[in-house]
Amino acid sequence: MSDSPGVAGFLRSIITVGRELLSSRGTNPIATATGLTEQCHQLLHHRGEASGLALADEVNKAYLHLDESQQLLFFQSLNQEFAVDPTQVIAAANHYREQPNHDTLIQVTKAVEAPRVRLFRRMNMAPGGTTALVKLRGDLLKILQQHPELKAVDADLKHQFISWFNKGFLELRAIDWNSPALVLERIIKYESVHAINGWDDLRSRLRGDRLCYAFFHPALPNDPLVFVEIALTRGIPTAISPLLDLSRETDPNADFDTVVFYSISNCHPGLAGISFGNFLIKQVVEEISKRHAQAKTYVTLSPVPGFHRWLSETASEHGVDAAQIQAMAKSQGENAPIASRDVALRLCAHYLINEKSGHLAMDPVARFHLGNGARLAGIHWAADLSEKGLKQSAGIMVNYHYDISAIERNHDAYFDRGEIAVTKGINRLLG
Amino acid sequence: MSDSPGVAGFLRSIITVGRELLSSRGTNPIATATGLTEQCHQLLHHRGEASGLALADEVNKAYLHLDESQQLLFFQSLNQEFAVDPTQVIAAANHYREQPNHDTLIQVTKAVEAPRVRLFRRMNMAPGGTTALVKLRGDLLKILQQHPELKAVDADLKHQFISWFNKGFLELRAIDWNSPALVLERIIKYESVHAINGWDDLRSRLRGDRLCYAFFHPALPNDPLVFVEIALTRGIPTAISPLLDLSRETDPNADFDTVVFYSISNCHPGLAGISFGNFLIKQVVEEISKRHAQAKTYVTLSPVPGFHRWLSETASEHGVDAAQIQAMAKSQGENAPIASRDVALRLCAHYLINEKSGHLAMDPVARFHLGNGARLAGIHWAADLSEKGLKQSAGIMVNYHYDISAIERNHDAYFDRGEIAVTKGINRLLG
Amino acid sequence: MSDSPGVAGFLRSIITVGRELLSSRGTNPIATATGLTEQCHQLLHHRGEASGLALADEVNKAYLHLDESQQLLFFQSLNQEFAVDPTQVIAAANHYREQPNHDTLIQVTKAVEAPRVRLFRRMNMAPGGTTALVKLRGDLLKILQQHPELKAVDADLKHQFISWFNKGFLELRAIDWNSPALVLERIIKYESVHAINGWDDLRSRLRGDRLCYAFFHPALPNDPLVFVEIALTRGIPTAISPLLDLSRETDPNADFDTVVFYSISNCHPGLAGISFGNFLIKQVVEEISKRHAQAKTYVTLSPVPGFHRWLSETASEHGVDAAQIQAMAKSQGENAPIASRDVALRLCAHYLINEKSGHLAMDPVARFHLGNGARLAGIHWAADLSEKGLKQSAGIMVNYHYDISAIERNHDAYFDRGEIAVTKGINRLLG
Amino acid sequence: MSDSPGVAGFLRSIITVGRELLSSRGTNPIATATGLTEQCHQLLHHRGEASGLALADEVNKAYLHLDESQQLLFFQSLNQEFAVDPTQVIAAANHYREQPNHDTLIQVTKAVEAPRVRLFRRMNMAPGGTTALVKLRGDLLKILQQHPELKAVDADLKHQFISWFNKGFLELRAIDWNSPALVLERIIKYESVHAINGWDDLRSRLRGDRLCYAFFHPALPNDPLVFVEIALTRGIPTAISPLLDLSRETDPNADFDTVVFYSISNCHPGLAGISFGNFLIKQVVEEISKRHAQAKTYVTLSPVPGFHRWLSETASEHGVDAAQIQAMAKSQGENAPIASRDVALRLCAHYLINEKSGHLAMDPVARFHLGNGARLAGIHWAADLSEKGLKQSAGIMVNYHYDISAIERNHDAYFDRGEIAVTKGINRLLG
Repeated sequence: MSDSPGVAGFLRSIITVGRELLSSRGTNPIATATGLTEQCHQLLHHRGEASGLALADEVNKAYLHLDESQQLLFFQSLNQEFAVDPTQVIAAANHYREQPNHDTLIQVTKAVEAPRVRLFRRMNMAPGGTTALVKLRGDLLKILQQHPELKAVDADLKHQFISWFNKGFLELRAIDWNSPALVLERIIKYESVHAINGWDDLRSRLRGDRLCYAFFHPALPNDPLVFVEIALTRGIPTAISPLLDLSRETDPNADFDTVVFYSISNCHPGLAGISFGNFLIKQVVEEISKRHAQAKTYVTLSPVPGFHRWLSETASEHGVDAAQIQAMAKSQGENAPIASRDVALRLCAHYLINEKSGHLAMDPVARFHLGNGARLAGIHWAADLSEKGLKQSAGIMVNYHYDISAIERNHDAYFDRGEIAVTKGINRLLG
Repeated sequence: MSDSPGVAGFLRSIITVGRELLSSRGTNPIATATGLTEQCHQLLHHRGEASGLALADEVNKAYLHLDESQQLLFFQSLNQEFAVDPTQVIAAANHYREQPNHDTLIQVTKAVEAPRVRLFRRMNMAPGGTTALVKLRGDLLKILQQHPELKAVDADLKHQFISWFNKGFLELRAIDWNSPALVLERIIKYESVHAINGWDDLRSRLRGDRLCYAFFHPALPNDPLVFVEIALTRGIPTAISPLLDLSRETDPNADFDTVVFYSISNCHPGLAGISFGNFLIKQVVEEISKRHAQAKTYVTLSPVPGFHRWLSETASEHGVDAAQIQAMAKSQGENAPIASRDVALRLCAHYLINEKSGHLAMDPVARFHLGNGARLAGIHWAADLSEKGLKQSAGIMVNYHYDISAIERNHDAYFDRGEIAVTKGINRLLG
Repeated sequence: MSDSPGVAGFLRSIITVGRELLSSRGTNPIATATGLTEQCHQLLHHRGEASGLALADEVNKAYLHLDESQQLLFFQSLNQEFAVDPTQVIAAANHYREQPNHDTLIQVTKAVEAPRVRLFRRMNMAPGGTTALVKLRGDLLKILQQHPELKAVDADLKHQFISWFNKGFLELRAIDWNSPALVLERIIKYESVHAINGWDDLRSRLRGDRLCYAFFHPALPNDPLVFVEIALTRGIPTAISPLLDLSRETDPNADFDTVVFYSISNCHPGLAGISFGNFLIKQVVEEISKRHAQAKTYVTLSPVPGFHRWLSETASEHGVDAAQIQAMAKSQGENAPIASRDVALRLCAHYLINEKSGHLAMDPVARFHLGNGARLAGIHWAADLSEKGLKQSAGIMVNYHYDISAIERNHDAYFDRGEIAVTKGINRLLG
Repeated sequence: MSDSPGVAGFLRSIITVGRELLSSRGTNPIATATGLTEQCHQLLHHRGEASGLALADEVNKAYLHLDESQQLLFFQSLNQEFAVDPTQVIAAANHYREQPNHDTLIQVTKAVEAPRVRLFRRMNMAPGGTTALVKLRGDLLKILQQHPELKAVDADLKHQFISWFNKGFLELRAIDWNSPALVLERIIKYESVHAINGWDDLRSRLRGDRLCYAFFHPALPNDPLVFVEIALTRGIPTAISPLLDLSRETDPNADFDTVVFYSISNCHPGLAGISFGNFLIKQVVEEISKRHAQAKTYVTLSPVPGFHRWLSETASEHGVDAAQIQAMAKSQGENAPIASRDVALRLCAHYLINEKSGHLAMDPVARFHLGNGARLAGIHWAADLSEKGLKQSAGIMVNYHYDISAIERNHDAYFDRGEIAVTKGINRLLG
């Protein structure tokens, strides 16, 4: 691939030609929402290919230079000026009602596709287009809650992304110390569960009995979509700090039997809702099982990020003080009284299993793993005493067990009947 | 990339697990349209990911085993059983008319998307899915004329392909004697203008002053989408056989000044209408101009594939006998009387410039190059005396000139006003 | 590797600079032994690096343009003009005898290294140098028997090759239909046991249950040193034609248990005596055992290339007519009378086991495999009825069995005591 | 390369087999000089290939576990127990004197090659063998001055390395932020001129207008032999700190005209005396001239590492106080009085041009660049005020100019007549 002449190089130069053509037409790129909107109209109605690519490139670059206030203005333009025309939709629909056939249906289909969809496709043709659009949706999602009227813009982008990021186009790659620094730098930046403190920490997470896998998409070269960090261990781990210890010794001949997914990070906020994590875990299980057949157990060591907030909000019902539990974890750690620990663990199990959002688990990490068909298999006190771990999970961590022979059954039971698969130990804990 | 664990490998094995799950459910893959249709319904409504991928794989494989009569039955099922529901469309449209907002629009959008679109997306997730779907549309197009009612199925596939095969995802690669045999074998097979007679002929077209470039898409690895064959020459060639001569000598120090595109082949009938050729030519011009700056002229040596048929049909109007011209080319070649040759060339120029289909050139090759902004720059007698050359083009070939500084202007004039750019020589010929 | 700027490119251009410097000095490359010898003297005494590389490149190219008679003259020059100076050797040796220390030893070492050794090292620095030198030794070996006085030149080259082609520098590669055509074309050309009849035959030998592995050296990129062709079979094969059958069907799920090495070819006559085959077989056994653990048996299907000649020369002693046996194989094949077949097979076993050259097997293929520690495990009548098979082996083929647990022991017994490992079946045959 | 099955993997497993064979013979690897010496004797006389490789691997590993005192003992064993046998040398020499022919010469050649040479070749066959041997020579060189009797061991290793590291086997690679972290980590570690302070510093040296190139050898994958760091600048730089400034801005459109080699590092002490730097610079000049044709000037910005010591030792002759000059550079930098600066610069020019070691420049960096044919083109006050820069060079740095049209001439004048090429400016400085 490296010796291919490269579409990007070519495009850059067609763009140069195109830009000269454009400038002779008097266009003038300005990084304001107004200027950008004007360029978008031109791009949408443009016909010449060379100058069209140049325009697309200018649009993408101009977008990347907008500040937040201009972004909002631009999104509002996308929402209003590049929207579906209700008159056309209604006219086409009327036509269809009178004569429901292929041609009238196509008219409806065209009428309900907002012009911005075609704009997005054109932006995507220029090199770096996909990157710009993923960034654009990430920016949009940040302000969507304050500006719910923009959800139509988001829906159009998401719909296009679902098509472009079809699972059939993903590439799994092992990440290790042989990977390009460019990729590793992004792994450091994107890690969202247990922050990576620089290159030494990264190296420690890639050496010896540690693995890392990521999905890539051809339109985002060297920029991972999602990745998972893995420890090979003897027995199921009950706390995070031994896994992250920089000074741990690695015995290459160690007889590990367990594969631990201890961190899964989505890299691009702009790809929210286009799920890769589930697919990644299953593919990695497959990969590892081929190389390390002796490892029979696949589990996570996961936070319970909604636990502390839920406990704070519902503490009165349960007769406990959330802040006190948190403080006990912090100050006493593993030495906290067994009885107090058990109260906390039981409440956490209750939270994970019984507290729902709709008919699915309320906790986002639980929702992800249970939705994948994993089984709740362990709840551990004082397992993550970092600031974040205490604040979100009151220091508790849990194991979700991926038992390949059971995931499809668990998955069905969870979605059909809201049933959550748990081990006997968890059941005993709940009493 | 080669050391990446490979999505395909993984999928194959998830599919194995999935297949076991499926078989315990009693499904039974049969390569008949009826069985396949049933599987498609299952795939569409399936939820489990592992068994879903297994199902997708079975659907793809089963499709590839259908014979032509079963294909037709299957396409008819796709057309009828996986179609839009007019009642839903009308209901959603009514709803929208009453309350035209984002949510009601989304309902219309969903209603006008046929269930088969989602089916195609699911089929694409399995390894080889894109290949199967491209094959499927190729098969469909073959029978579409006899079965115009299937055009809705084609429209849905084409719409999806336009998104998946966005230009931003294409990769340009030089094809040479270092390319994998797997790729070269396909070049031999796909060549559609001047057939490649085995490996020796191919090698001759890749050595010395010959080049070849192709576009690839990541979902069709090692399977080109479109490719162009190129000769570097001194002066503009006026006949094809010297270019294809296996025994020609190549002088590595030859002082060529001209780049000749003498063959452009689309590889997959199933991608008809998703145009890559224009983009390929422009990218290749760019590539070559970087490496061979001394070559200033970029031209084609092209057939006129519709000429002989048109001449036969209109011969009485022009007072000539088409068969006689063809026979003269065959028997006398370059020795035909100048006056007779000039008649033929003038008619050919007339055909290319004045005969239109709509407001565009009637001849398909002319339509392609003129639409790209090229200029008609030469018409040559006895330029291709092969059976095919005589039958389609009465032995005539033409040059289209790609003058980068003029292509945008030519393109606009052609599409805006139907004007065809020609050189003075051609104008003189027309008188 | 492909995107590295490339030593070769650089060298070519340093050579351009160097050549200009040279030409201003009045050197003039001529492809005669005399001219080349003169250039060699210059190269040997040259100091400037740029012009030195240019000179080396000219020497290499000039060598490649010598015809056979000029080659001989050139080898004679190498032998005489670039030889050790006996006076110097004797002087240095005298010096050493008087004062045997490091410095006087170094003087002897230098005196016994012929100047041509340094010449070869300088030739090797230019791009393509290794290729030219391997070719040179190949040419030299062809005429060595007629010109035994040249053996000193050969000894120097061989000594240098042993160092350059150290096993630690070899790279094993799988050869398949994804390999560059450039490599595959050479596989066709180099195959020396069962000729490959063009690309279709090659493809047949690479598909389905067939494998091919080769060793490469970094200084001969894309040019294999040695390769082995392999069939995966059920049971040990007793004849070659079913293995080479183009129309055989391959069942990807076939339950093979045997790995058959049916052809091993050394690619470069110039590397004779620098053995890679043994190492290749052992590495391939290792490779395959990782991927196909169910295959427990590793055998060859090999010719007995010296059998027919030996039989012709010794027929009177054995009371058989060699030509008659050969004719019977040709005309009756497997239908020859059992008794006659048994006579032939018994003689062949006798030839393989008892006929020695020194204390090693006389037959070259037997010598190779027995020297690797393999065991003679089968002798088959009418196993190769090709012209070559009849002419060399009277149609007989044999299996050598590579039993990893026994090869070291067999190897020792063979070299220590001339013992040849055979199966009981072979012993029974011998009576 | 990455998808090749890998010699290393294979060897590791042959070694496993071999080790079992060995252990049944009762050998027992111990990381002492005595144990290792014993293993070396075994390896030298061993015949079985599998167990031979296992032995070689054990020897290599055992060597890497020796501490410094054991290393010395081991080197002494290599020197004594694996040395040439004078009796044999003298006998062979006598034989040759009586009958000077090829066979008797071969006997001398064999007699003067110490057994340890064959030992080294055998060690090199195991994976990692080259790495171990390069390390071994590095260790040896460290103690050679105290133990000059070991020079024979060094001479044998160096002679072998000259053959293995023939320039024809080197590969030039661009080093950038896309390179494997494994390689970049080594660049950080090996940099020997201006230390790289971690990953941020490295990244700064690879971005924008900075380049880095390295030579690799196939037997040391991902381990560079030598590398050069380069800045593209406008005008010739006169101080190092602007080049190393992490916060400098890079203008991708900057109109640079000069290529500055500001750091060249040899990576392996064990390869001392096997020169790659000269070849690297010339190849890099070639590479860059193809990509950045507008850059016409190629210069270094180099330390004068022997200047301060020389000045200290000879200060009385020159009537200056070396420590005072150093202190002035440190405290006043560019603000030092012009007259004082000129005294220092003139002395430095004198040191570089007139102080010789033999007939070559005394300063090691000067010796390298002048030997390559470069011209002394600038001497700058207060150019490197780092601790090392002050200590070695009194803060002075110089430019050596690589003028391709003059390097061959300069090179010859330097080696033939000890003439040092300087610019007029330098001559004026000297008065």
